[in-house]
Amino acid sequence: MFRTINASTRLSCPLRPAPWNAFAKRSFSTTSYVFAQRAVKYETNGEPSSVISTITYPDLPAPSPDSVNIKFLLSPINPADVNVIQGVYPANKTAQQLLPEAQIFVAGNEGVAVVQQAGSDAGLAEGDWVIMAKQQAGTWASASCVTARDVIKVPKEIGEVHAATITVNPPTAYNMLRDFVDLKEGDWVLQNGANSAVGEAVIQIAAHRKLRTINFVRNRHNIDDVKQHLQSLGATHVFTYDDLSSKERLKHIKSLTKGKDPRLFLNCVSGKDTTTMLRLLGSDATVVSYGAMSKQPLSIPTSYFIFKDLKCTGFWQSRWYNTHTREERVTVMNEIVKVIREGKLREPEHEIVTIPGSASEEEATTMVREVMKRVEAGAGRKVLLRVEEVP
Amino acid sequence: MFRTINASTRLSCPLRPAPWNAFAKRSFSTTSYVFAQRAVKYETNGEPSSVISTITYPDLPAPSPDSVNIKFLLSPINPADVNVIQGVYPANKTAQQLLPEAQIFVAGNEGVAVVQQAGSDAGLAEGDWVIMAKQQAGTWASASCVTARDVIKVPKEIGEVHAATITVNPPTAYNMLRDFVDLKEGDWVLQNGANSAVGEAVIQIAAHRKLRTINFVRNRHNIDDVKQHLQSLGATHVFTYDDLSSKERLKHIKSLTKGKDPRLFLNCVSGKDTTTMLRLLGSDATVVSYGAMSKQPLSIPTSYFIFKDLKCTGFWQSRWYNTHTREERVTVMNEIVKVIREGKLREPEHEIVTIPGSASEEEATTMVREVMKRVEAGAGRKVLLRVEEVP
Repeated sequence: MFRTINASTRLSCPLRPAPWNAFAKRSFSTTSYVFAQRAVKYETNGEPSSVISTITYPDLPAPSPDSVNIKFLLSPINPADVNVIQGVYPANKTAQQLLPEAQIFVAGNEGVAVVQQAGSDAGLAEGDWVIMAKQQAGTWASASCVTARDVIKVPKEIGEVHAATITVNPPTAYNMLRDFVDLKEGDWVLQNGANSAVGEAVIQIAAHRKLRTINFVRNRHNIDDVKQHLQSLGATHVFTYDDLSSKERLKHIKSLTKGKDPRLFLNCVSGKDTTTMLRLLGSDATVVSYGAMSKQPLSIPTSYFIFKDLKCTGFWQSRWYNTHTREERVTVMNEIVKVIREGKLREPEHEIVTIPGSASEEEATTMVREVMKRVEAGAGRKVLLRVEEVP
Repeated sequence: MFRTINASTRLSCPLRPAPWNAFAKRSFSTTSYVFAQRAVKYETNGEPSSVISTITYPDLPAPSPDSVNIKFLLSPINPADVNVIQGVYPANKTAQQLLPEAQIFVAGNEGVAVVQQAGSDAGLAEGDWVIMAKQQAGTWASASCVTARDVIKVPKEIGEVHAATITVNPPTAYNMLRDFVDLKEGDWVLQNGANSAVGEAVIQIAAHRKLRTINFVRNRHNIDDVKQHLQSLGATHVFTYDDLSSKERLKHIKSLTKGKDPRLFLNCVSGKDTTTMLRLLGSDATVVSYGAMSKQPLSIPTSYFIFKDLKCTGFWQSRWYNTHTREERVTVMNEIVKVIREGKLREPEHEIVTIPGSASEEEATTMVREVMKRVEAGAGRKVLLRVEEVP
C-alpha cells in the first residue's frame, strides 16, 4: 500500500517527540503518506502480550547531515524489554510520534541495523552495520532515523546474530569481570545463574582471560547436558544449588580452589542459596548483583562485612552506558569483537522470528503478541525479531 | 608480697610467647620472683565471668633499647573484649608467659599507660602517656613491656578517660565518615544504633565537620531524654525504629533532606528495620556495617544494587589498624585529639572500677568476674578498669 507523502509535511529526522503539533495546525491530511515502515509499539504500560501492537508509518525522509536512516536487521527480545513495556523497569523511554495521531513508544533496546542513507556529516556510509549506542532506541522496527553519535559501527564479519546481541549481555559479562576485582590469570570467579545469557558470556570471557569459574545452576532433568554445555564453553566447574545443602559437598567445592578463594561472585539469583554461596568466598571479596531470578532479597550475615571485608554492589549495563563516554563504549565493543573474532564467544542460542511485510497490521500484531506470550512465560531460546518493511 | 627475682631468669622484655621453655629446662624455681604486677588473664576461651581470673607476676626487668615499661592508667572493657575472651572474635591474640608455669592470655585491647622506664632508642621518656598501636596488647594489667613502635604518644591534656578510649570508637566513627563517601559540608548521614559509643562519636564528629545526621534509636521509656542527649551532641534529627512502620512518617523523614538524600548509612543493627531504612537513601549510596546488634543478617532487595547503585561494605577498626601504616594511625589519632581539644567530642559515659593492689588474688578475681557479669548483661555505662600494682 504505497501512498504519496506530501513533501511539505515530511517527517523530521531524527524522529523527536511530538513534532506533530505543528502538522496538526496545518490541517494535515493522513491520506498523503507513504506507509512503508513498521514498528512494534505500545501506548500504555502493561503486559506486552496485551499492550503491544504494530504500526505502519511513512517511509523516512532523507536524514539531516548528522543523522542516518537505518534498516534494522535483527533485534533481540531481552527480558528487560518485557519489564520496560510493563513499566516496572527504570528506563528513560522516549515517546516517538511516527504518525500525527498518536504519541507512541517503539519497543526494543538492542539490535543491529544497516545504514540505508547517511547524512553528509554522519561519518557513516550506506551499507555500514551499526549497533545502538543509545538506550531504548526502539529497535523493534523495520527502520529508524538516528543521529550518528547514537550508533556505533560494527564489523560485518561477526555476523548478524552476534551484532544484534552485542550491546547488553557480553559487555555486562566483560565489565563485571573487569571493573570490580583486579583478577589475574588463574584466579577464580564464582557465579550463579551460570546458564543465563550473561552467565554463559561470563564463562567464555573468563576462559578467554584464563580465569577459572565455579558455576552454579538449578538442578533439572537434563543437568548433565547443561553441565557438559557449560564446560564446553570453558566452565571450570559446574554445580547445582542442591550441592549447597551438604556441608561435605560445600567443603569439597571450597577445596577445589586450593586456598585461592574466589574474590568475585557474580549474582543474578539472590535468596537463600546465594547466601550459602558466600561461604565459598575468600576475604575482601565482592558480590556483584545484576539480577534476582529468585525474586528474593540478598541476605548477608553482617559479620561477613565486618570481619571478611565483603563488599556488595550491583551492575547495570544501562547505567554503565550512561556514565561512560562514547569512546569507552567503543573500546569495550572492540574488545568483545576481538573475543568473537577469535572464536571464543559463541552466538547465543536463538530463534529468528520474522514479521513479514506482507502481513496485515492485525496479523503482524497477533504474531508479535504470541511471541511475547512465549517470552513472558520464560520460554527457552532468545528470540531475535526481524521486522520487515511493508511493501 | 615482695620476693627476690633470680637475675639469671628475669623476664625478657618485651614479653613474647613462650620464652619460658628455656627457663623450665634450667630447673627454674618459682620462689625467686618479685610478685609485684597484676593482670586479668584467661587460659581457655569461655564466658568471661567464668574463665577470667587475675594473676600476679614479677615486676618488669629493664626494657631493651627499643622498648618501654609502661604502667596502665585506665583500660576500657569494650564489647569486643567479651567476644575475644569467648573466642568468637577473629582477633589474633598472642599468648603471654608471665610465669613459667602457664601460657596465658592477658585480656584487654585498649588503654592508656604512662611510661615508667624507656629504652635508650625508644624515643619516649618517663612520664609520657601512650596508647596502644598494636591490637590485643593485654591492657587489663598494671604494667607491661612493649616495643616503642607498638604505642603512640598521646597528649596528657585530653585526660585519662579520653586517652583510654581513643583507639577504638572515635577512629571507627572518624574513618567511616571519611573513607567511603566523599562528604561535603551540609551533606546528610544516616545511622542506626545512634546512642552506641560509636554512634555518639559519629554524631559529634559529623557535627564538627558540619555534616547533618539522621539518627535512629530503639524506642524506650526515656526516649525524650535520649533524643535530647543526642541532639545536645549535635544530632540533626533523632527517630525511633517505630517511625519506620508508618509510610507517612517515612515520607516525612525523607522530606527532611529536601531532595539531598543521604549517601552514607552507618549500620550497627541490621535486620528488618535496617532494610526499611534503606528507603531513606539516595542513589549511589553506601551502607557501612560495623555491628549487628539485632543479631540478624542484612537483607537487601537486589534491585537496590542494580538500579540504585547501592554499595554495602563493612568497617572494622582492627583491620584498619592492620592495613594502615603507623604514620596513618598517628595522623588519625591527632585529628581526633584536635576534635577533643576543641571540646567537640565528649568523654563517653563511664565508671571506673579499680582492682586495688591490696586485694588478694581471690578477691581481685571475684571483683573482675562481677564486673564482667555486668558487662555481659549489657549494663549501661562503659567500664574503665584500673588494675593497681600489688604492693
